[in-house]
Amino acid sequence: MGIVIIRQDGKIDLWKEALKLHAPQIPVYGYLEDHPKEAIKMALVWKQPEGSLAGYPNLECIASSGAGVDFLFEDPQLPTHIPITRVVDEYLAKDMSEHVMALIFAQLKNLYHYKVDQGNGVWKPIPYKRIVDMTIGIMGLGALGTVLANDLVHFGFTVQGWSGSYKNIKGVKAFTGSQEQAEFLRSTQILVCLLPLTPATTGILNSALFEQLPKGAHIINVARGGHLVDGDLLQMLDNGHLSSACLDVYHQEPLPTDHPFWKHPKVHMTPHYASVSDTNSVVPQIVENYRRLMSGEVLLHRVSETKKY
Amino acid sequence: MGIVIIRQDGKIDLWKEALKLHAPQIPVYGYLEDHPKEAIKMALVWKQPEGSLAGYPNLECIASSGAGVDFLFEDPQLPTHIPITRVVDEYLAKDMSEHVMALIFAQLKNLYHYKVDQGNGVWKPIPYKRIVDMTIGIMGLGALGTVLANDLVHFGFTVQGWSGSYKNIKGVKAFTGSQEQAEFLRSTQILVCLLPLTPATTGILNSALFEQLPKGAHIINVARGGHLVDGDLLQMLDNGHLSSACLDVYHQEPLPTDHPFWKHPKVHMTPHYASVSDTNSVVPQIVENYRRLMSGEVLLHRVSETKKY
Repeated sequence: MGIVIIRQDGKIDLWKEALKLHAPQIPVYGYLEDHPKEAIKMALVWKQPEGSLAGYPNLECIASSGAGVDFLFEDPQLPTHIPITRVVDEYLAKDMSEHVMALIFAQLKNLYHYKVDQGNGVWKPIPYKRIVDMTIGIMGLGALGTVLANDLVHFGFTVQGWSGSYKNIKGVKAFTGSQEQAEFLRSTQILVCLLPLTPATTGILNSALFEQLPKGAHIINVARGGHLVDGDLLQMLDNGHLSSACLDVYHQEPLPTDHPFWKHPKVHMTPHYASVSDTNSVVPQIVENYRRLMSGEVLLHRVSETKKY
Repeated sequence: MGIVIIRQDGKIDLWKEALKLHAPQIPVYGYLEDHPKEAIKMALVWKQPEGSLAGYPNLECIASSGAGVDFLFEDPQLPTHIPITRVVDEYLAKDMSEHVMALIFAQLKNLYHYKVDQGNGVWKPIPYKRIVDMTIGIMGLGALGTVLANDLVHFGFTVQGWSGSYKNIKGVKAFTGSQEQAEFLRSTQILVCLLPLTPATTGILNSALFEQLPKGAHIINVARGGHLVDGDLLQMLDNGHLSSACLDVYHQEPLPTDHPFWKHPKVHMTPHYASVSDTNSVVPQIVENYRRLMSGEVLLHRVSETKKY
């Protein structure tokens, strides 16, 4: 019996303490300390070293400690046929929604533009947009996208969503599949990417897609760097088809210092911090799934083996 | 019979056309063209030249073409005992609300900070705040402040307001008078000034007030430059008591190029463009008041002679 925590960001002790506080009866170990590998039933993982999950003969569940699980599948030694779970954290979704709304409002009111103007000593009013003028298109209506869509509708935006299957969200026009993508894009002024990263969505934000957006559209990518073809974005910003891009995620993080995004006037960067898992809200889900695992019940937030999210 | 338009921003023809379109039967003149001064019943005014209102012997109404009227009272030759009206424009209030919300969200998610970091090639996550963490204090719950307060409550912020008299707005804790000001300030994390500019409110944003805010508070002034004591703000930003100030209004506009606000890292400037009167939404109010004036009915949005707003 027990949980092993595997992550390389220096936060093992933080998660251990949080788990101990919530469920003192569960043995919890860091993966680098001495621990009984055959006793481990669950691994709580974030960006594991390759092969680190292979040494647990009785592992019954791999739990991502975030909403994403794409990093798990990058490991060729990932044990197969063991259930994978992810976190659906109310704050995680709400934080993401608030980040995207901050970016949308900043675009409406030209805040980034004014900040640059201030630095250059320029006083120049720029016509603004209103909530009632804007159609926001969300790609991906999972746990995060759904909260965002509901919030945007609540605030009065026109909202449409494109996702793997039709999602019925009040006030949100639903699109699905490749044949409906063009219609979705044609009427989207601000495109928000919240898709899971899978082989089918890798590189989906490319020239062919951008060209279907109306001239002057804005891009917000808060999903994964792998969704975006960086060169295509730069070309579409430079030829004036796209107005701006707000990026929180990148192919490599931190973004290498010589990457053109850093100095591009139409790219607005945040350092992958739109929404971060909070141990306080995540730990109860992990403990509940451990209990379910021990008693043979159905796990919460299990990841589909075929869809990989 | 007729209306004279007095303003110096090159927009007289724009307003004339908008009035002609809406009410072709009303004679409308620009104040610099030849026109029958004794026939003029209403002056539609924005920042008039001193004395320009004095030459109309039969004037019966002075209509500000914006929400503010403070500029009228700066004119020593302002005719007395003539009703003054102002504009209460749904869009004007909504635009202001959206501007303030954009600034609040930008503060929650550190967008200005990240924009500066990007320019410096710095990748550094900064802890963010959430809507549920924030108490917004609004000074001034008139037409603009009320719409903002309602929007912020709708979005889930904790909202309190301080105004000349108790205002009953659902979900908003109301404060009034100097004895309640300290309690209002003590629990305000982001202070929004939307007061009218009067002798009583001139310089109200000063050190004595800032000191009563909790350490780390943010200031948003979208009312008038005259509310703020610039030197006091700079001192409170520099000693770390205040975290930032977002300013849309200034003592002199455009702000002189040598003013320290331009280069201050904690001051975020917009060029008095939070909300601009839209002729389409303002003109019907002007025409309606002209009709009321002609038929002796009570005028809409009349300014109090004693309070001057």
